[in-house]
Amino acid sequence: MISTEQKLNELIASVPEPDKKAMELARKRQSILAKPPGSLGKLEELSIQLAGITGRTKNSLEKKHLLVFAADNGVVAEGVSISPQYVTASQTVNLTRAKTGASVLAKHFGCGITVCDVGVNADLEGTPVLNRKLAPETYNIAVGPAMSRELAVKAIIIGAELAMSTDADVFGVGEMGIGNTTTASAVTASLLHTDVQSVTGRGGGLTDKSFIKKIDVIEQALSVNKPDSHDPVDVLAKVGGFDIAAMCGAFIGSSAAGKPAVIDGFISAAAALCAVRLCPRVRSYIIPSHASCERGYSLIMDELGLEPMLLLDMRLGEGSGCPLAFQILEAACAIMSDMATFDEAGIDDCYLKPLREGSC
Amino acid sequence: MISTEQKLNELIASVPEPDKKAMELARKRQSILAKPPGSLGKLEELSIQLAGITGRTKNSLEKKHLLVFAADNGVVAEGVSISPQYVTASQTVNLTRAKTGASVLAKHFGCGITVCDVGVNADLEGTPVLNRKLAPETYNIAVGPAMSRELAVKAIIIGAELAMSTDADVFGVGEMGIGNTTTASAVTASLLHTDVQSVTGRGGGLTDKSFIKKIDVIEQALSVNKPDSHDPVDVLAKVGGFDIAAMCGAFIGSSAAGKPAVIDGFISAAAALCAVRLCPRVRSYIIPSHASCERGYSLIMDELGLEPMLLLDMRLGEGSGCPLAFQILEAACAIMSDMATFDEAGIDDCYLKPLREGSC
Repeated sequence: MISTEQKLNELIASVPEPDKKAMELARKRQSILAKPPGSLGKLEELSIQLAGITGRTKNSLEKKHLLVFAADNGVVAEGVSISPQYVTASQTVNLTRAKTGASVLAKHFGCGITVCDVGVNADLEGTPVLNRKLAPETYNIAVGPAMSRELAVKAIIIGAELAMSTDADVFGVGEMGIGNTTTASAVTASLLHTDVQSVTGRGGGLTDKSFIKKIDVIEQALSVNKPDSHDPVDVLAKVGGFDIAAMCGAFIGSSAAGKPAVIDGFISAAAALCAVRLCPRVRSYIIPSHASCERGYSLIMDELGLEPMLLLDMRLGEGSGCPLAFQILEAACAIMSDMATFDEAGIDDCYLKPLREGSC
Repeated sequence: MISTEQKLNELIASVPEPDKKAMELARKRQSILAKPPGSLGKLEELSIQLAGITGRTKNSLEKKHLLVFAADNGVVAEGVSISPQYVTASQTVNLTRAKTGASVLAKHFGCGITVCDVGVNADLEGTPVLNRKLAPETYNIAVGPAMSRELAVKAIIIGAELAMSTDADVFGVGEMGIGNTTTASAVTASLLHTDVQSVTGRGGGLTDKSFIKKIDVIEQALSVNKPDSHDPVDVLAKVGGFDIAAMCGAFIGSSAAGKPAVIDGFISAAAALCAVRLCPRVRSYIIPSHASCERGYSLIMDELGLEPMLLLDMRLGEGSGCPLAFQILEAACAIMSDMATFDEAGIDDCYLKPLREGSC
């Protein structure tokens, strides 16, 4: 067990600081491109962030890749989701067939996808799903801890190693797991020291009655398990899930590999929050995508000092916001690489002679 | 003159109602796709809107096209812009060279672009800019009307005919014209019956002093010209510009041709507002892109019942938000065409047998 924790500590220590010099050069180039200063807003900021990540002023994101972590959550026994548990297994397989929301978008925009089973309650051998199953599901957090501390660390390392061993220029981090808005809310409430109600939404579409039940269950999970909010691994182990822990690892691993990683919705944001709490340098590598409708999402964005780039009223998960965010990142790269500077934008004087004099 | 107005009236009359039946079929299909109902938010709504426009449930937007209208504004004589007037001519030419913000993005995302001179104060013959010049520039609206009513109608028809004669599945409508946030603010204040201050921003980046001057100039333009706010053509003629009038026409022409058209930022939104006021059916064909930083933008969105899809703090113009919005539209099409329905999402039962029983 100590060696697993050591591995995690080494991983965290290996995340480099962003390249401040490259960021300064990128900022300088943005200031001489032919446009009013700052007029391309976040496209400019993203290009500077990417320079800090890669060390290069001009970047291109040829290989975009979605990492989707799938796992089941014992807490579904409490009736916190409208979908039956087998939907996790079914959609996990469908994600590899380009038939679900996120995988359709990944295919359309030419992104690779790896679907990783870290704890789906079904035997998925024989499918293209990557088998990193830690257990058939977590334990019911309303009764006791979701998993041991050792398994939580293992899940983080699985996510990190997957990111570090995947050939890509940018990652998106998504999930599939019935019940995981419940665990994400519990993790978020604990890490942000906030009440459960302000970080809990209706997930796939709960009724009023089930929604009240969901809040009760999360409150119970927090009071039964008493996670140490200053220890993200303890929080993940006690009230999280295999999916969130592995996603947290993916954000850290992506940063350690010097690659940007895009947050999807609420669950992905909760995992990113865990990653930044474990390793503050990860903050320089993460990029938001769409504004999730789930309540906890905006609190996490505020905490991380991020603002979503897409307003699409989406709440599907799976990483569905990432392929669209990749397009925005590509736009940021194109601006930096292909726009003319003020010097280059000069054209032959003959076109500049006004037909009507005296206006300015 | 009467015949030009007649032409405009015929154009307006030719805009078809959206196909309600196709929209109903599209809505039905969205409800059987394997996802929580409504969980893809605006991607679902866009796919239904597109069905109404094309009459088909499944759509694809192979040919995306940016129409950029360029013109100079006599009002720059009042000192309402930080950029000198010749920047209009220079960037108009650069737009055809894939060197400006919008044209770089158009090229990156494989969108066609037509740059149309409707009143640039320079001789652009010999460049790839389409010559539809109506005058070297408008008159200074602080002193008198920008143009005659006849020229305003002509500009609208030029924009409409360009959209109707361009082979594309979707249009983006952008502009280039130093001083055109001033005219767009004047048009918006008139059409929305609102005070000038609440629709006026700093354009390319005015100082406090120049910003106050800009508001004064717009107030003067409105009090000198007294545009009839119930007559959009009168508003465009008195306090608008050739670019805004032609863009208004592009929105109408695109609708008449049964094609969706994407709004860029504030100036494009002001033109779309004119188009919807002239022909309310145009509303069914227009799609917002990014949230402009210019103040008047959000008032126009509220008036049109639209919400931007991209939060990028952009304020460049040129149509720069449209190529990104095209990607979102493509995503909406892919979802509708390629996602599995609940029936199709079923997988072999062997994967659905839980490894651990009793959770749900």
